[in-house]
Amino acid sequence: MYRTHTNGELRIENADSRVILCGWVQRIRNLGGMTFVDLRDRYGITQLVFDAEKNETLAAEARSLGREYVIQVEGNVSERSAKNPKLPTGDIEIIVQNLTVLNASEVPPFTIEEDTDGGDELRMKYRYLDLRRSNVRSNLELRHRMALEVRNYMSSQNFMEVETPVLMKSTPEGARDFVVPSRMNSGRFYALPQSPQLFKQLLMVAGFDRYFQIVKCFRDEDLRADRQPEFTQIDCEMSFVNQEDVLNTFEGMTKHLFRTVKGVEIDYNFPRLSFAEAMESYGSDKPDIRFGMKFVSLKDKLSARDFKMFDDAEYIGGICADGCAAYTRKDIDQLTDFVRRPQVGAQGLVYIRYGSDGTLKSSIDKFFSTNDLKAIAEQFNAKPNDLILILAGAKKKTLSALCELRLEMGNRMGLRHRNSFAPLWVIDFPLLEWDDETQRFYAMHHPFTSPKKEDIALLNSDPAKVRANAYDLVINGVEIGGGSIRIHNGDLQQKMFKVLGFTKQEAENQFGFLMNAFKYGAPPHGGIAFGFDRWASLFAGIDSIRDVIAFPKNNSGRDVMNDSPSTISDAQLEELNIRVVEKKA
Amino acid sequence: MYRTHTNGELRIENADSRVILCGWVQRIRNLGGMTFVDLRDRYGITQLVFDAEKNETLAAEARSLGREYVIQVEGNVSERSAKNPKLPTGDIEIIVQNLTVLNASEVPPFTIEEDTDGGDELRMKYRYLDLRRSNVRSNLELRHRMALEVRNYMSSQNFMEVETPVLMKSTPEGARDFVVPSRMNSGRFYALPQSPQLFKQLLMVAGFDRYFQIVKCFRDEDLRADRQPEFTQIDCEMSFVNQEDVLNTFEGMTKHLFRTVKGVEIDYNFPRLSFAEAMESYGSDKPDIRFGMKFVSLKDKLSARDFKMFDDAEYIGGICADGCAAYTRKDIDQLTDFVRRPQVGAQGLVYIRYGSDGTLKSSIDKFFSTNDLKAIAEQFNAKPNDLILILAGAKKKTLSALCELRLEMGNRMGLRHRNSFAPLWVIDFPLLEWDDETQRFYAMHHPFTSPKKEDIALLNSDPAKVRANAYDLVINGVEIGGGSIRIHNGDLQQKMFKVLGFTKQEAENQFGFLMNAFKYGAPPHGGIAFGFDRWASLFAGIDSIRDVIAFPKNNSGRDVMNDSPSTISDAQLEELNIRVVEKKA
Repeated sequence: MYRTHTNGELRIENADSRVILCGWVQRIRNLGGMTFVDLRDRYGITQLVFDAEKNETLAAEARSLGREYVIQVEGNVSERSAKNPKLPTGDIEIIVQNLTVLNASEVPPFTIEEDTDGGDELRMKYRYLDLRRSNVRSNLELRHRMALEVRNYMSSQNFMEVETPVLMKSTPEGARDFVVPSRMNSGRFYALPQSPQLFKQLLMVAGFDRYFQIVKCFRDEDLRADRQPEFTQIDCEMSFVNQEDVLNTFEGMTKHLFRTVKGVEIDYNFPRLSFAEAMESYGSDKPDIRFGMKFVSLKDKLSARDFKMFDDAEYIGGICADGCAAYTRKDIDQLTDFVRRPQVGAQGLVYIRYGSDGTLKSSIDKFFSTNDLKAIAEQFNAKPNDLILILAGAKKKTLSALCELRLEMGNRMGLRHRNSFAPLWVIDFPLLEWDDETQRFYAMHHPFTSPKKEDIALLNSDPAKVRANAYDLVINGVEIGGGSIRIHNGDLQQKMFKVLGFTKQEAENQFGFLMNAFKYGAPPHGGIAFGFDRWASLFAGIDSIRDVIAFPKNNSGRDVMNDSPSTISDAQLEELNIRVVEKKA
Repeated sequence: MYRTHTNGELRIENADSRVILCGWVQRIRNLGGMTFVDLRDRYGITQLVFDAEKNETLAAEARSLGREYVIQVEGNVSERSAKNPKLPTGDIEIIVQNLTVLNASEVPPFTIEEDTDGGDELRMKYRYLDLRRSNVRSNLELRHRMALEVRNYMSSQNFMEVETPVLMKSTPEGARDFVVPSRMNSGRFYALPQSPQLFKQLLMVAGFDRYFQIVKCFRDEDLRADRQPEFTQIDCEMSFVNQEDVLNTFEGMTKHLFRTVKGVEIDYNFPRLSFAEAMESYGSDKPDIRFGMKFVSLKDKLSARDFKMFDDAEYIGGICADGCAAYTRKDIDQLTDFVRRPQVGAQGLVYIRYGSDGTLKSSIDKFFSTNDLKAIAEQFNAKPNDLILILAGAKKKTLSALCELRLEMGNRMGLRHRNSFAPLWVIDFPLLEWDDETQRFYAMHHPFTSPKKEDIALLNSDPAKVRANAYDLVINGVEIGGGSIRIHNGDLQQKMFKVLGFTKQEAENQFGFLMNAFKYGAPPHGGIAFGFDRWASLFAGIDSIRDVIAFPKNNSGRDVMNDSPSTISDAQLEELNIRVVEKKA
């Protein structure tokens, strides 16, 4: 035993007891003959005192310590004269009698503080030091608690966690598969799973009834700011259920997580928005409904007034920002610049100011009469002091731009609090997505997603209109999870392949193995998968998933800490029967 | 909702209630006008009744069902006249009023029964059907419960589960690494972890204090009967601990698992055997101590009697089999054949029979007098009716052969009950192992394992004698886990590398990255890793780890169910900048 207590547990009740503590030197202060050392471990900080008058040798040793030295001290717990109410151990300090340096430390390349002076690159290179910072560590503690609560809740609901293979089969469409050459099977490759979809459906065929797994998945794609080549999913599947059963089950899990991990009691049913409604009202299939400002569509409600931007527009719509009539010219210019950025892509911004005196002023006064403006303001239920912002143009693009504008206004108006949470289900997704480039339909979710019964007839006549039994869990504008009821009927599956433009042979090549399993009594089933990294970062109140991952990779998929990926030896390549081909310059 | 109840939950109290059930058709019996169907799901079996007299159409439908059809039925719960006490639902049956076929099934290639008629190959190919067998499924349920209990126990002890990378750095000694070509970093490779050793030590440097993870690991080696290319470990590490702390912590976890999963209360401290004792008494570092029959060494206790086999032997030792004096000539011949098999490798077997009348008969009567035999029998504390079995030869080989003989006798005498458990710690392993071929020492555990303080001086003078702070958990002759206290002192680590024959440069290349981290205040730490598959199979009472893995691979590392690993497209190879090299015939 190196210690009797951790640095987070001693209280005034422990005064006068003899203790042994271990930890890292956070800070040293010399005040006259007294040396104070803050000793840190995962559990907290405890103040150590060395009195030069009582033991000069010991005090000198203490003064010679450096930041991040690992030490062991023995001493007596003593009530502090100057208590520190910010520290759980702030009522006491340790009068040290013995000091042992367990390990010295070079001066770390950045400070081990919540607000460190280290830049991103440096902190990633020395991730093991970055992880010593209490805010980074507490994110990982949160993640641990979340995983534990998921497992206990799911188990209480009769779900079994089953480990599915990491070394699996590469699919012909697996362009984003990471592959693993097999030494024992020359010229052949395993693939790392992009998801355990296939296996979880097989487990349903196997009668496992309720499966879940917190599982690493892999995708070899160009990484955007917040993607990782390996990521973690909470993967779930259940049998003999319809969409309603799945939504209820996982709404229960979500509420459980909020309650146990965040201390947030959600005592209402999650709102449900159809994909169509979500697009019309928020211009997004993952709306942030912590605040209102729903879109108001104006196209059908405006008469032509020779205002070209409106007259030519496929879609005209806007939002009403409560109490923002006082926005200055400069504010409006900023917003106009915002919507004109290429990432947002609107042509321009129309505003209507509803003055506190009831007057209406707008950027389109030239074209619209006061009565026209009044009529528009009524569409928005606008009140004095409100600011109406309107975009117009091609529908899809304008909805998306208006979505960005709404979120920006939400930020400016302080309506997107990190500690307020607004979960909802988005349902009734389209089954298919048309791709202009390849001139064919693709499955929006995946080819096993079940169409709604009442829409099956449309599969022949108007495939784009077919809605799927597919659903997403969205919290605060972040897609936390998504899933669907699967097709379990062979005929319907064949039809689906046909709509997707697969020949019988192609379908057989790509999915024959699962289809074969389905011949032996597949139950009706459906499921969902949650992005665990994303969920953890949402709960941690941070924007990036990197800091809920102990050892993340950078945007090039590299671990700068240990400089991987790296070259391997020729002997190893030879054993694997592969050769590296030099990239053409 | 497809069902109101599962097939495992209806009891006599439910009589007369209306229920909807779903499941697979296990069995159909036609008795006169009555058709009985056993409906199966994960939770159990419920009997359905169709009465042709009441509804001939429905009964005809029932008769037309096939094995493994997926059906939904609605009906009334009724008390059975002939109850089945073997079935939890055996008091009731369902008088069916509605029957819906949810999915038909082709005739499965083997019977879905505990005792199936399917061979290994066939069952692996149709693993999703094999998993429907209740014994296979219950192994996976057991595995799930074990994982959950490990997680809850470890969390209660302040251990944090942290996910470490699957895509990591290949080490120069990583001959057994699976590698993953990186598309974004041409010519470079990730490696899949053989264990998270490096990362868990970094987490200790990061001050995480107590880490665990149930984690997939990978090893690309020729597979023996009971190895898998991907396997699961319970990986653990703690800071500020010595060996005693680690043993106590994980003895606690082990007892918790026995209690909660197996219902076995272990109210004693696990015995501890030094490696040396284990080898002397059982000829193995993983002794099965469910039974005695410890080795008795005779070499120093026998005078030369011109019996060449003994006189030339480096080691003579034997075991005493209680009450086996009645073994026939044939029995002894079988045992002699057993020890002479190449896998065991003894030259011959000497026996001494202690008759019930007190007489001693042996295969060495020619060389040893009755008094000699008596003296030998006394060494074994043999009683009338016992059988003494003796082997002689080179020490290492003979100890190992005697170990096999002891286990064989344990089997024959019925001393190795599947439901009795005898855990122990084997401690004080040698730090180093001499390799004759390469004429150098290798680390027995790994190069970071700490030598015992009192043996450090021997590192220079007699390295083979140095004992390590390394330990194994052994249960019933199976190594369930192993670990060590790590070196956290830079100087000692350098010395260790020197003993292992690394140049400074080689040490830097292979371990520089960890050594670098150690410069910034590494705490004293140690840990352990358990083979989760092995432990689950021990608890399941089965010999192979395959049946505690949902989708295992065969001895060639192949998944015969989906025929992986498989070839990948040229386009994919090109994107990865690698080429397959044809193997020379």
